[in-house]
Amino acid sequence: MKAFMDENFLLSTETAQHLYHNHAKKMPIIDYHCHLIPQMVAEDHQFRSITELWLGGDHYKWRAMRTNGVPERYCTGSDTTDWEKFEKWAETVPYTLRNPLYHWTHLELKTAFGINKILNPTTAREIFDECNEKLCQPGYTARGFMRRYGVEVVCTTDDPVDDLRWHRITRESGFEVRMLPTWRPDKAMAVENPTTFRAYIEKLAEVSGVTISKFNDVIDALRIRHDFFAENGCRLSDHGIEEFYAEDYTDAEVSNIFNKVYGGTPLTPDEIRILKSAMLVEFGIMDAESGWTQQFHYGAIRDNNSKMFRLLGPDTGFDSIGEFNTAKAMSRFFNRLNDRDCLAKTIIYNLNPSANEVVATMLGNFQDGSVPGKMQIGSGWWFLDQKDGMEKQMNALSLLGLLSRFVGMLTDSRSFLSYPRHEYFRRTLCNLLGRDIENGEIPVSELPRVEQMVEDISYNNAKNFFKF
Amino acid sequence: MKAFMDENFLLSTETAQHLYHNHAKKMPIIDYHCHLIPQMVAEDHQFRSITELWLGGDHYKWRAMRTNGVPERYCTGSDTTDWEKFEKWAETVPYTLRNPLYHWTHLELKTAFGINKILNPTTAREIFDECNEKLCQPGYTARGFMRRYGVEVVCTTDDPVDDLRWHRITRESGFEVRMLPTWRPDKAMAVENPTTFRAYIEKLAEVSGVTISKFNDVIDALRIRHDFFAENGCRLSDHGIEEFYAEDYTDAEVSNIFNKVYGGTPLTPDEIRILKSAMLVEFGIMDAESGWTQQFHYGAIRDNNSKMFRLLGPDTGFDSIGEFNTAKAMSRFFNRLNDRDCLAKTIIYNLNPSANEVVATMLGNFQDGSVPGKMQIGSGWWFLDQKDGMEKQMNALSLLGLLSRFVGMLTDSRSFLSYPRHEYFRRTLCNLLGRDIENGEIPVSELPRVEQMVEDISYNNAKNFFKF
Amino acid sequence: MKAFMDENFLLSTETAQHLYHNHAKKMPIIDYHCHLIPQMVAEDHQFRSITELWLGGDHYKWRAMRTNGVPERYCTGSDTTDWEKFEKWAETVPYTLRNPLYHWTHLELKTAFGINKILNPTTAREIFDECNEKLCQPGYTARGFMRRYGVEVVCTTDDPVDDLRWHRITRESGFEVRMLPTWRPDKAMAVENPTTFRAYIEKLAEVSGVTISKFNDVIDALRIRHDFFAENGCRLSDHGIEEFYAEDYTDAEVSNIFNKVYGGTPLTPDEIRILKSAMLVEFGIMDAESGWTQQFHYGAIRDNNSKMFRLLGPDTGFDSIGEFNTAKAMSRFFNRLNDRDCLAKTIIYNLNPSANEVVATMLGNFQDGSVPGKMQIGSGWWFLDQKDGMEKQMNALSLLGLLSRFVGMLTDSRSFLSYPRHEYFRRTLCNLLGRDIENGEIPVSELPRVEQMVEDISYNNAKNFFKF
Repeated sequence: MKAFMDENFLLSTETAQHLYHNHAKKMPIIDYHCHLIPQMVAEDHQFRSITELWLGGDHYKWRAMRTNGVPERYCTGSDTTDWEKFEKWAETVPYTLRNPLYHWTHLELKTAFGINKILNPTTAREIFDECNEKLCQPGYTARGFMRRYGVEVVCTTDDPVDDLRWHRITRESGFEVRMLPTWRPDKAMAVENPTTFRAYIEKLAEVSGVTISKFNDVIDALRIRHDFFAENGCRLSDHGIEEFYAEDYTDAEVSNIFNKVYGGTPLTPDEIRILKSAMLVEFGIMDAESGWTQQFHYGAIRDNNSKMFRLLGPDTGFDSIGEFNTAKAMSRFFNRLNDRDCLAKTIIYNLNPSANEVVATMLGNFQDGSVPGKMQIGSGWWFLDQKDGMEKQMNALSLLGLLSRFVGMLTDSRSFLSYPRHEYFRRTLCNLLGRDIENGEIPVSELPRVEQMVEDISYNNAKNFFKF
Repeated sequence: MKAFMDENFLLSTETAQHLYHNHAKKMPIIDYHCHLIPQMVAEDHQFRSITELWLGGDHYKWRAMRTNGVPERYCTGSDTTDWEKFEKWAETVPYTLRNPLYHWTHLELKTAFGINKILNPTTAREIFDECNEKLCQPGYTARGFMRRYGVEVVCTTDDPVDDLRWHRITRESGFEVRMLPTWRPDKAMAVENPTTFRAYIEKLAEVSGVTISKFNDVIDALRIRHDFFAENGCRLSDHGIEEFYAEDYTDAEVSNIFNKVYGGTPLTPDEIRILKSAMLVEFGIMDAESGWTQQFHYGAIRDNNSKMFRLLGPDTGFDSIGEFNTAKAMSRFFNRLNDRDCLAKTIIYNLNPSANEVVATMLGNFQDGSVPGKMQIGSGWWFLDQKDGMEKQMNALSLLGLLSRFVGMLTDSRSFLSYPRHEYFRRTLCNLLGRDIENGEIPVSELPRVEQMVEDISYNNAKNFFKF
Repeated sequence: MKAFMDENFLLSTETAQHLYHNHAKKMPIIDYHCHLIPQMVAEDHQFRSITELWLGGDHYKWRAMRTNGVPERYCTGSDTTDWEKFEKWAETVPYTLRNPLYHWTHLELKTAFGINKILNPTTAREIFDECNEKLCQPGYTARGFMRRYGVEVVCTTDDPVDDLRWHRITRESGFEVRMLPTWRPDKAMAVENPTTFRAYIEKLAEVSGVTISKFNDVIDALRIRHDFFAENGCRLSDHGIEEFYAEDYTDAEVSNIFNKVYGGTPLTPDEIRILKSAMLVEFGIMDAESGWTQQFHYGAIRDNNSKMFRLLGPDTGFDSIGEFNTAKAMSRFFNRLNDRDCLAKTIIYNLNPSANEVVATMLGNFQDGSVPGKMQIGSGWWFLDQKDGMEKQMNALSLLGLLSRFVGMLTDSRSFLSYPRHEYFRRTLCNLLGRDIENGEIPVSELPRVEQMVEDISYNNAKNFFKF
């Protein structure tokens, strides 16, 4: 019987233990995609309580609580106290056995607070108090947590109109962890609603100094902002798309469609797809020209619960995995950029695990020998960010591409406590490799190569790939 | 080398064995979805032979026999004897190694008849004779088997026009196992064929006492039957749908479409989808108002073999797993009910295992804290009702929801010998949990919680959820 | 710690080892689907170097090299030497750990050349030299390799207009391995391009002696070629289709559509689907009448990279796994043939592993008891031709059909070194069965049946099924 979450947690062979303890553990963290709030880093935010840290915006936990029969006021309500919310979470935790939340919770307690207790109604109060006490101490701030976990670089997720003030302030403060922006122009593609789209474009015109009256003006304005982001250290873009869009179009069509929506008239579904197709190409060209890496997070269906959307807005736990046949559009899109010699380094994150093999084989169509692992399948995303999801992603990549060239883990998180997911990922990676060696599927004589591979996937590959 | 199907069958760790033997095994069975023929329970049917029991209507076995090269007359023919059919099945059994039929067969022989022999051509005759001999004895009737397996409740599957006579007779007979009806209005939704649809609606008019001339009359008539079912103890509905339907429609459109088909004119595919969309909403409202649980079995493509359909009719082994992108329609449908505060407790059964994650994450969109596990993903259905299918369903649920709140197993069977599938399921569940504990992925200190969880999933959750 | 690729490679239990060493290993190879070049067998081709053998046309290796950052000239270029190409491959090999290429590479070195070294930059030169030295020796030719691996029959893949000269020459040469043609009329279905289609049909007219002016003439001409193939020992057809096509059509429609494209006018997508639907039915009828087995390889999306297609043409490593909802069309197609009593023995190869269960259950709809395992799901194809893909295919088949009746492995390869994949497959098969026996999921008393099953799947089933 293995002890729970001891030093060999998830490491089922001696070789796996060796790989983790001697090679993975020591590598710094490059968290190249996250949703941290830059202001909190700039101001070195001090947390009011473990409830703020854990339950302030974590829709994973809210979903679990709702599933467990906890009323909404203990999730997102303003009429319940931090303790009341925490208590409900503590009541829910024992019901999350086998869910990644159970592991995240205890890994975070252990690594951030040195607490090895199991959270449940009996221990809830003492854990609440101990965490809150520590959160008053200097090492337990936003920056404190980043230092504690050995973070070297984080890339936040930012809108093109953002002034990147907090990034600048952080940089100028001499904080030793580099916080870089990521260019995410989703709002520039949100052409479904003419009103909010118009408002966004006007804001874009303002910050870019470009007078916008036609589609090309939008692109010009975005290019100015793209350069501004680059000047601020940005090396990645990111796109949250439902599917890939690769319709045929002419410049005149795109121009007309833009004028229509900018003039306030809603677009047809076909027009929306055309406009998005054109924009994605323009975004891809900008990234290629800047030597950036473009990221695509596709396949979520969002805001499924209208009632809760009206109450709480987006990103509150009402999204799920969609079903799409988008392989051909994905292929056409990358081919279009490739044909113009404008295909940037790329990471594709898929949300439906049954698309792992589709994406992993799509990569090979556009690997061109220019950069090792130029086309990447992203680590298990969102719902798939757990042992099973990580293993499936790594197995698909291993079997259909080169695991050795994988840029590895990212948190995709808005929490300062999510860094142990890198540890979780590394343990899972080492476990796969250790098992293969002990099974005779990888020669033990190649152990030095495997050790290097572990260090590469943990850190070096990302460092070399993104060129921060 | 582990012995075949001994007391620790499927239980690979000591903790798994403990969980099963001390916690799972003792729980009664609530078989909340099956296709037993109520008359057989009411009359305490005595079986002519093991052939009647096993091969009388089991399309799983027929499929295996056809695949093994057995001519149709030994499957469904009327010119072959019980022994001839059984013999052909016994010849096929050794070729079913690794198929669940191999396990079902021997688990049923063992638990129903106390026979530990392996069925093959050599043992066929003695097993045939021994079973048939026992089937003449009093404990080996329909009710006898239900008692033998510790069944507490069964829910049959019934048409709204059914008079539920056999349920009443059974109830009044004082039989200690409760047999409750389930409302399955598939025929009311079968609008593809105007003639059979008209005939069905006329029958509905007759039994409900409602004169039907328009769509709303159908709904009124169905409500009367819904109430009648409720009075007879019904607490669940069930819908066999190919995909989810959630088209936009107006009352006028639905009314016109109904009039068209009721008048004998075939509908277009779009009209069919609209009419089904409207009906599903009405059914959902009825269930919510009655506090029932609605079940959806989606994703089968049926009657693929026209030649055999003409000979044998439906449900004879010519159905298979379909491919659908139905996540968005599923979302819209539940959202529509949720928006009207009419979303009943729900179980979604998917047939394509690659949709497990889609369904498991869909649940979270509509969990509202009112009932623990209000939205459920059903246990491995039909072709997936085997160890691999069960494990995949439980893993998806564990990773993306709360396994602890799962209402567990059902037989979905028309056989009185299918109850060992509950044992099989419980062993599989205990095996997963035992392995996680011994691996250090679940703390051994939480064993009491896991023990409770096993008892809950085996029995308590269903009992509390359905409120029979 | 198990040694790498020793005699018990992939065999994790003693029972697995027994099954492999005493039952699988000794069986000859029937390679019923491959892409060998018949002329090379006829002329008993001697290889210039290991580079010609390994890197002359292997797009799997090229993909891995491109992914690893190797410039194209070392993959397909004409300005690099054999040694330079080999050296780049040797540099790539250590980065392919966990990819099947790593196993194929070392299994081929070991079984073809008796080399047990690990290929990497250090060993590259000595391995290169040793292979090349052996390739000058008599046993290391095309026929030499076929003898070495115990091949009994190979089925190549041939166009209906092929004169099968090399098959005849090989046959007449007295070579003890039978090389039979396979009928693959893909070009007759390639109606997307009127010019190349016309040219193909004119060639068909010439070789068949049929004057072609209408659709039925094409069918007549193909029937003549079908008979010619049958006379030359052909027993299988093969179709590379993106999806299944089963549109409704009339003879007149098909006739008009054919005239249109034959006249030089491009077809609409709907017309293309109709024409393909009609052709597939005609092909199916021919196969049924001849007692052949029809094979369908579906689900690839090909030539995704236009730039490289212009440079290198097809089959150069720019294909990937597609996403299709084709289950209903597949069902309609087989049903159409079945309804006319013209459904031949069939093997369906799917490329997206998430369709394994769809295909495995589709089989059961059309198993008719006439031939054991009449409908087959093909062994892991292309990207899925590795341990994980093989296991998933065999598990799906086991759970949803009869593994015992499986016709087993094929190389699908254009290399004379691919035969160890049969060994790999057999080890994987034995490993699954051995584990089940030792786990108590298969009774050890049934070991003789399992031994027979291993021999059957390795060899006997194919022998009995195809009737060469």
